[in-house]
Amino acid sequence: MSLPEKTEARELDGNSALKEFRAEFFHGTPECIYLDGNSLGRLPLKTISRMERAVKGEWGERLIRGWNEGWYTMPEKLSAQLAPVIDAEAGEVLITGTVSLNLYKLADAALRMKSGRSTIVTDSLNFPSDIYILEGLVRNHGGHHSLRIAGSRDGISVSYDDLFELITEDTALVVLSLVAFKSAFMYDMKRVNEYARSKGALVIWDLSHAAGAVPCRLNESGAHMAVGCTYKYLNGGPGAPGYLYIRQDLLPELEPPIQGWFGHADPFAFSLSYKPAQGIRKFMTGTPPVLSLIPLEISLEMISRAGINQIRKQSKALCGFLVSLSEKYLYPLGFSAGFPQNENERGSHISLRHPEGYRICKALIQGLGGEVIIPDFREPDNIRFGISPLYNTHEELVVTVENLVKIISERLYEQIPFQKDAVT
Amino acid sequence: MSLPEKTEARELDGNSALKEFRAEFFHGTPECIYLDGNSLGRLPLKTISRMERAVKGEWGERLIRGWNEGWYTMPEKLSAQLAPVIDAEAGEVLITGTVSLNLYKLADAALRMKSGRSTIVTDSLNFPSDIYILEGLVRNHGGHHSLRIAGSRDGISVSYDDLFELITEDTALVVLSLVAFKSAFMYDMKRVNEYARSKGALVIWDLSHAAGAVPCRLNESGAHMAVGCTYKYLNGGPGAPGYLYIRQDLLPELEPPIQGWFGHADPFAFSLSYKPAQGIRKFMTGTPPVLSLIPLEISLEMISRAGINQIRKQSKALCGFLVSLSEKYLYPLGFSAGFPQNENERGSHISLRHPEGYRICKALIQGLGGEVIIPDFREPDNIRFGISPLYNTHEELVVTVENLVKIISERLYEQIPFQKDAVT
Repeated sequence: MSLPEKTEARELDGNSALKEFRAEFFHGTPECIYLDGNSLGRLPLKTISRMERAVKGEWGERLIRGWNEGWYTMPEKLSAQLAPVIDAEAGEVLITGTVSLNLYKLADAALRMKSGRSTIVTDSLNFPSDIYILEGLVRNHGGHHSLRIAGSRDGISVSYDDLFELITEDTALVVLSLVAFKSAFMYDMKRVNEYARSKGALVIWDLSHAAGAVPCRLNESGAHMAVGCTYKYLNGGPGAPGYLYIRQDLLPELEPPIQGWFGHADPFAFSLSYKPAQGIRKFMTGTPPVLSLIPLEISLEMISRAGINQIRKQSKALCGFLVSLSEKYLYPLGFSAGFPQNENERGSHISLRHPEGYRICKALIQGLGGEVIIPDFREPDNIRFGISPLYNTHEELVVTVENLVKIISERLYEQIPFQKDAVT
Repeated sequence: MSLPEKTEARELDGNSALKEFRAEFFHGTPECIYLDGNSLGRLPLKTISRMERAVKGEWGERLIRGWNEGWYTMPEKLSAQLAPVIDAEAGEVLITGTVSLNLYKLADAALRMKSGRSTIVTDSLNFPSDIYILEGLVRNHGGHHSLRIAGSRDGISVSYDDLFELITEDTALVVLSLVAFKSAFMYDMKRVNEYARSKGALVIWDLSHAAGAVPCRLNESGAHMAVGCTYKYLNGGPGAPGYLYIRQDLLPELEPPIQGWFGHADPFAFSLSYKPAQGIRKFMTGTPPVLSLIPLEISLEMISRAGINQIRKQSKALCGFLVSLSEKYLYPLGFSAGFPQNENERGSHISLRHPEGYRICKALIQGLGGEVIIPDFREPDNIRFGISPLYNTHEELVVTVENLVKIISERLYEQIPFQKDAVT
């Protein structure tokens, strides 16, 4: 089945302000349609040679000297590159650790700062591991806090009324994903920040599913703190480090729970007692994973060059296009919307629900519809189509819908076993 | 000045059981004499092509599929490779995080397990950042613990009497470096473990300056817990991850303070509440830094193939050779021993002290003596010569001493400014 929208798609792609970027990424042989940039971004071509240089030229040739020739200052330099992408000042952002570790550090420091208060608020759409961290902190702090989880009435979004009901003058901390991992529901950060501030509560935003695809207006919205990862829309590679953000004026009030070597004021003085670094560096722990940091040099430059507002514009265009194709061709075949209808209330992926979602997703990945197409699956029935505006095209979305129609109408997904992989 | 020992050195190198390994490492152009494998190990040649494959073949070609094609199980596989190198069972070792982070996790869990006890014991030769972590934990746990630091009478070693005096029935935890970073003083692990056990205290060993060069007899000595890094003698590359060890029977009693995603029993079920993994994996936090892990595939295989006992034998031979050259040629020029005299009480680096240590060290690195020679410097006056038996040779040590004699006798170090680099 060939959809008539292909011509329009090609025209739209030809007119895209970002069209030059696609060729800056590595495309395998045979090429696949990659709609999972919301899990792991594509490899920029320049990263290949940059990593060669890192391994052979820096580690191999320069050995320990590499630390004074760029590695030691790398986290700060990369953090300064990331800062404008999330509307922050250079000294407010630190690339380090993982999302979970960074959330642990910030939430622990926040609970100490708000030690008289006893509730922590999150929502049921949040990434579950954020909740694991909070549960652990409740235990670590003696079990005196209670964790309040705002529910979602439709499984897609959270009502501000339901959320705000839980935020009281006894709330120490609110932890939310700016963009929900399953439905792509996106909060109005400013609205939440202002409400929390009116109650004297701190807020930590998890930007993992937003940064690099959606403008995260940290400064403009008066955000206190944030965490995120760099391996999704920021294209940092598998297991690339996380980052944390702390608003300038809050920094002196927050004490890192883990007093790490690289967070010391002078790590190489080897003084026997801890003295925190002046700035955000005090939230670093140990030696940064240099080889996992280096790809960010390339990918953050690309994001900056494209411009986050232009990226958002293209993301909206692509997501909207997929939604309209879905309404026309997929809903009649049993799919339904797993995402907010208002484009201003969602991030950069589109979740389509189908009772056979898992097997349909695998059928796409295995190329049963003709093309290898890679989205991912989230329980119980969501296929997530991640839109990474630097490399995804309208034409890819048309082909994806063509493949879905074929897989459903010819029941090709029935060839797939129900058994799931370790990583979905 | 050419030393007569060069002939003997070449013979010794020609007869070395490990001589084939040197050619398996990358040697830059021009070659340097690298005596800093105790800070950052050399690059194995095979790591170059392995990393190319990781970047282009795995991330680039396979994208998100890489997680089910090796990345997800990588920490466990590499941990199983590391385990025999430190005399542990596969399920007792986990490659994750950094030394500081791992020490934080284990020490926090240990303090909770021994909650009735109020002292933590370490020594003044320990790596300072281990002490920073402990100081932070004292604060986090309400300030009820006191940190007792055993002193060193000679700045080189710690007397067991002085240490044991501090370990009492009120001691929750003892944290020591198996090999001291400055002097290379090495504890008798078994003796400390047994004494601590007699008082009911737990012990965490920091193996950073030992593993890969010295057999760390964790199981044999009855060790409770350990942490370490992989970028020194284990040749994992700049910022390669740390590891932790927990004795099998202690594992159920230790609760990870950071309840991380990858430590969940079923991370991809996305359940809203935390359930720890059965085994040591519960001590993982977030997504592992894949590109920083991969070099360990190559380097751990090399260590296993060489055999840790053979490595130790060669390390003793090389260290002893450097000591005898130093006694003959360097002590008369103002150097003195910064290391224990008994070879069974030291690790695999030799610290030579000199009032002009910093500038002499820099003169070596800048090649002022004729060859570029890379040791490192530790305050106040130690030049550390790290001996990595897989690639260092007796001949390199003769050339190093020749260069030192020239630099001192011709006062070449006076060309070096006193100003220090950020990373020493």
